[in-house]
This record gives sequence, C-alpha cells and structure tokens, in this order.
Amino acid sequence: MNKLEEGDILSLQFEKRNGLLPVVVQEVKSKEILMLGYANKEAFEETLRSKYATFWSTSRNELWTKGLTSGDTLKVVEIRVDCDQDAIIYIVEKEGRGACHTKSKKGTARTSCFYRKMNLTEEEGELEFIEK
Amino acid sequence: MNKLEEGDILSLQFEKRNGLLPVVVQEVKSKEILMLGYANKEAFEETLRSKYATFWSTSRNELWTKGLTSGDTLKVVEIRVDCDQDAIIYIVEKEGRGACHTKSKKGTARTSCFYRKMNLTEEEGELEFIEK
Repeated sequence: MNKLEEGDILSLQFEKRNGLLPVVVQEVKSKEILMLGYANKEAFEETLRSKYATFWSTSRNELWTKGLTSGDTLKVVEIRVDCDQDAIIYIVEKEGRGACHTKSKKGTARTSCFYRKMNLTEEEGELEFIEK
Repeated sequence: MNKLEEGDILSLQFEKRNGLLPVVVQEVKSKEILMLGYANKEAFEETLRSKYATFWSTSRNELWTKGLTSGDTLKVVEIRVDCDQDAIIYIVEKEGRGACHTKSKKGTARTSCFYRKMNLTEEEGELEFIEK
C-alpha cells in the first residue's frame, strides 16, 4: 500500500515544493473557486488552530490571515488533501463580501479572484470579464 | 489602471513562479475540484490548441496530456485566470471515469484527487476518506 495515497495519516509534502503548497479556496455552498494561495507549515497550522484561511504571502514574505484588515475573512469548514499530499483545498464560508483584493466597477471587493475567462473561440490572447 | 488585474490581455506570469503556474481543474457540472497540476507555457499552449487538459509533469519532467494512456481525458470548456495572472482554472468535462491515478476499493479510478478530508474536530493529524 502507498501510505501517502491510501493512508489516513496527514503527511503534507512541504519539502517537495520548497516549503510551500498551493491551496485552493472553494466556497462551501456555491462551490465557486475564490482564490489560490500558498501555505507553509506555519500557515497551515495557524489555519487549523484559528479555523480562518491563512497563507504564506509570497509577495510580502509573511504569514497572512485573509481578511484581517479588509474584514473579508474566510471561515474554514473543511480541509481536503490530494493523493500525493502536496495540494490542499480550504472549503470556506465567506464572512465579508469578497475574496479578492481587486474591486468591481461598483467599488466592492470581487467575490472571486478568477473574474476573467479566456476567449477560447476567437482571439486567444483575449480575456473576458465575468463581473460579479 | 493595473493592466495585469483590470486589463483584457492575457499575460500569464510564468517567470514569477519559475516557469510553472498552478492549474486547478474543476468539473463544469458538479463544480467539484478534480485535481491540481502545473502548466508551463508549452503545456498551456497545447491545452489551448487541443482543448484537452495538458500539464507539465513535475515528477517526470515532461509534457503530460491527462488521460492519453488511461482514457480519462479532460475536455477543457473554459479557462479562467486570476487577478495577478499567476494561477489558472481549467473547467472541464470528464470523458472517462475519473481524474485521479489512484483507484477506489471498487478498482476504478477515483473521480477526484481530493478524496480525503481532514478530521477537524478530533485528531488533527487524521484523514478521512470521502469515497466516490
């Protein structure tokens, strides 16, 4: 048996990815993907402790609990781990309005960071906004 | 205006992440997250060309169109890009049974690589299987 794949012991493979694993954030009801961040061991443990989605900011190089300044915190209700234990899903409830630091035309935080899709039929370098 | 965030021109930031961007694969109908892979520029362009989910395999160091050997190909129906253009979603239709290389007790490929969740209430190092 491959313990990493078939075992029931958490053994996240931080070393395999230079200390940082990608974390997909999915909203529990809509199943919408809100953002993608990274967690090191410290960020993951802080998430477990606080139950608030916490990441390692790769731009600021610091522990980052989403929404602590904006109020758009993400309450973690479930955590999933993939087959080779090097990717994570935080399933969350939104406590504020959005999950993205960008703002829509209405001036409010966008619900998801994935607010643009590609135009797959015509010009392939073109993005279309999915406004929310 | 921040062009990367508010523009409609695709400008994926491969260099920022050493040439590889994380790709979340989401099933179009169920909105279930099936797997997380990585794409370099070549893999992304092959996905655009073929409309089949293609990645850069970080274990085998080669271009990898999911399902070419197993038959579990993933037809890409939509591609989303995040605010800072360093994370991607492939929204797909499954053409085979599953998306994971692991097998359930029934001997069939698991639907999603995220078939385990953490036990958040009791023993925190423990994983529970979500069998599909």
